[in-house]
Amino acid sequence: MLRPWKTILHINLDCEKAVFQQIADGITEEIRKGRLQPGMPLPGSRVLADDLGVNRKTVVLAYEELLAEGWLQSAYKRGTFVSEKLPVATGSRKRQGERNRTAPERFGFMMHRSGMVSSRIAEKSVITFNDGLPDVKLAPLDELSRAYKRIFQQKARCQLLGYGNERGEERLRAAVSTMLTHDRGLHVKMDSICITRGSQMALYLTAHTLVRPGDVVAIESPGYLPAFEAFTYAGARMHPVKVNEQGICVVELEKLCRRKKVKAVYVTPHHQFPTTVSMKADRRMELIALSNKYGFAIVEDDYDHDYHFGLRNLLPLASYADAANVIYISSLSKLIAPAVRIGYVTGPKDFIDSLSALRMIIDRQGDTVMEHAVAELMEEGIIHKHARKALGVYRERREHMAVSLDKYAHRIATYRKPEGGLAYWITFNQYINTEELAVKLLKKGVQVTAPDKFFFDNMPVSALRLGFASLDNHALEEGVKIIAANVKF
Amino acid sequence: MLRPWKTILHINLDCEKAVFQQIADGITEEIRKGRLQPGMPLPGSRVLADDLGVNRKTVVLAYEELLAEGWLQSAYKRGTFVSEKLPVATGSRKRQGERNRTAPERFGFMMHRSGMVSSRIAEKSVITFNDGLPDVKLAPLDELSRAYKRIFQQKARCQLLGYGNERGEERLRAAVSTMLTHDRGLHVKMDSICITRGSQMALYLTAHTLVRPGDVVAIESPGYLPAFEAFTYAGARMHPVKVNEQGICVVELEKLCRRKKVKAVYVTPHHQFPTTVSMKADRRMELIALSNKYGFAIVEDDYDHDYHFGLRNLLPLASYADAANVIYISSLSKLIAPAVRIGYVTGPKDFIDSLSALRMIIDRQGDTVMEHAVAELMEEGIIHKHARKALGVYRERREHMAVSLDKYAHRIATYRKPEGGLAYWITFNQYINTEELAVKLLKKGVQVTAPDKFFFDNMPVSALRLGFASLDNHALEEGVKIIAANVKF
Repeated sequence: MLRPWKTILHINLDCEKAVFQQIADGITEEIRKGRLQPGMPLPGSRVLADDLGVNRKTVVLAYEELLAEGWLQSAYKRGTFVSEKLPVATGSRKRQGERNRTAPERFGFMMHRSGMVSSRIAEKSVITFNDGLPDVKLAPLDELSRAYKRIFQQKARCQLLGYGNERGEERLRAAVSTMLTHDRGLHVKMDSICITRGSQMALYLTAHTLVRPGDVVAIESPGYLPAFEAFTYAGARMHPVKVNEQGICVVELEKLCRRKKVKAVYVTPHHQFPTTVSMKADRRMELIALSNKYGFAIVEDDYDHDYHFGLRNLLPLASYADAANVIYISSLSKLIAPAVRIGYVTGPKDFIDSLSALRMIIDRQGDTVMEHAVAELMEEGIIHKHARKALGVYRERREHMAVSLDKYAHRIATYRKPEGGLAYWITFNQYINTEELAVKLLKKGVQVTAPDKFFFDNMPVSALRLGFASLDNHALEEGVKIIAANVKF
Repeated sequence: MLRPWKTILHINLDCEKAVFQQIADGITEEIRKGRLQPGMPLPGSRVLADDLGVNRKTVVLAYEELLAEGWLQSAYKRGTFVSEKLPVATGSRKRQGERNRTAPERFGFMMHRSGMVSSRIAEKSVITFNDGLPDVKLAPLDELSRAYKRIFQQKARCQLLGYGNERGEERLRAAVSTMLTHDRGLHVKMDSICITRGSQMALYLTAHTLVRPGDVVAIESPGYLPAFEAFTYAGARMHPVKVNEQGICVVELEKLCRRKKVKAVYVTPHHQFPTTVSMKADRRMELIALSNKYGFAIVEDDYDHDYHFGLRNLLPLASYADAANVIYISSLSKLIAPAVRIGYVTGPKDFIDSLSALRMIIDRQGDTVMEHAVAELMEEGIIHKHARKALGVYRERREHMAVSLDKYAHRIATYRKPEGGLAYWITFNQYINTEELAVKLLKKGVQVTAPDKFFFDNMPVSALRLGFASLDNHALEEGVKIIAANVKF
């Protein structure tokens, strides 16, 4: 030790940390950094105390602690040393110039990648057509806040804040079960529901419970990238199947089934992502018949089922009499706000049992407080009321979007009012590079998502999905106007 | 159709649902159930209207909707039929007695299993020695509730409730980074932190980013089952390595490294789970040196680091100068309450990048509201204050537990005061079947966890981990007394 101890061990009497601790910390810091090496002697307690200007007992206490922890050793009459048992910290040697020692071997790992983007919209001045998110400004946040408060104030709160059930709180599963019966024609027992962190976790769990590496999974194309990634990550070989005006092309799917053992098909029948097409009744029944014939699972993503503008809400595949192979996924996130991450998955009891065991390994359980708060909003009818109110607002915006499109875009693109969901799908009349368009538009103050991420078969893309729900009439019109003005064939 | 329409379609004028919708729903229900089959004729609108006692226009509206959805088809002058394009629903055939048709092919899936238990403690009359949970009654729940309230009231709340960052809210990562610097001697940039749903998700993500199927992972034995499961589920071949009074047996580990390429080692150095042993300084440095020599990752689980009863808190392996291969995991859940699922993982930037991409696929992001609420408690020093207060209470309970053990159990078991953490590890002086003991104890009103789940090498087990933090002095003494009275060698 060339430097005096005073410059190494900085004693601060105002510090919350006891002085003996500051000394002990300083010494171990020097050892860990390799500046004090095994076998090096430490000054006697009296010397160090003098040097630091502290009581000798304080130094003794620090040394005793370090001896107990194994940092130091003491030899009778010879004094105190850095423990010989400690290996030499290599950090030090570099500093001392031994540059030719071998660098530490580094561990390797896998490079996961995701094409999903989670950017929060940053600039206010930009008109953002997202991919179909609800307007958080309409969300029943005051009610949600009050529900949280009540839960924190209730007597049983300590019970709630311990560990919960990996399938989700019973209270919420009961509320979801009731809602599914009323709104979706589904009769599901509480044990066959697993509450998840948004529909994304439902997709991940489903994929990892269904798929062994190499299994074939069919997916709509264009389709929903996060589902594609969840299945791919589980090891599935993905087979995109075309979507037309009636929904997924069942004939093409059956051809695939004849060639390969298809494990599962992922579909969004209520209004297809991204094209907004509602799957017609005959397609639905054919798809179910195929699944029973070939024994594949239908993973039905019934997202945004509350946002349907037709006269009548379409019931999901899972509600059909023959739907023995349907795994049903939906979410409350879009009904309240994206950050309220509550999704759910239902299916055969033994499937949900298996999926729930995996969930336990991933994150043990959901957010019990949030689950109770949302259950309360459901029980009190607040969610239902909110959905109806929001639907009215979105209906109006959907109309205004149509007016704007008719005004500015009818010559360059085809589109039609979506029967459900919160986005328009517009197809340009001629090919246009939408990625370049997106870059150009951003400079003009309009943000759109280039749709190449929706196409899994590498087809040239000439369409946009324009979410309209979070924009007011002025922004909608202005946005459409700017898009139209920048499309050049 | 043999039954009259009136008994099939139940019209309720008080129902919130429009009458035409009730008619349309009733008809599709009959089709989906297979009672109305493809090609069957429907009554004329006038006839049906008379039969049901409704206006004809209402029936026409229902039929038009069903035609548009593809359920019905109409033939010029011949009337309206159930669409021929619909496949026959098989549910019906069974009802009609065609029992010899083939049953639908069912989809197969994997049976996941977890040995983890998430039971909420049900009976109040039972004295529960959990495996080391904090006392939720001490948690700063009022402060947490107020933080939630403030977040819901703030102007930017709509921003917060949209999508967030998959690594966690910046504000919380900043607070965690500051805390790590102050309390754990770790200097971590915000980008190298990923906030997770409790430490369990940190383990899951780490395992799935490190391990390819077949990779060798070493784990302390006895050890932490949820970590064992996370790595196993990622496909690791697990190698249990013994733990003694100094911590994991480094000599044994090096033997393993010489025989096989070890990918990672999972350790709990601060106070080992379940034995409560703190890893000694020489072991720590040897372990780091080994990891640099053989290029394996050290996954350091620094759980409960706030609960240390010694004079000086031990700094984690990750703070050592040579610790190039350490992935550091910890959690705030036990500091606040198990249901507040906030953990975190830090490591090399590129590793955290990869891990965060996987996180995106699993559940997109964390709970932004909770993350802000917890960040606020950290910024305001409430968490720190709570930890100090709780530590005082736990110190007292730890003392009382020692007194109780000395009074009732000193003849039958060895144990020592844990340096950190919220549990005692007691080893019986002779072999005893702890599973049978647990069953017997439950009948006497004491719940303990049989420790066979901690041992990964199938050794006979004769010890118990007794969490003391949630029990008051009376319960502690009574519990220990009952355990001692029921141990018979």
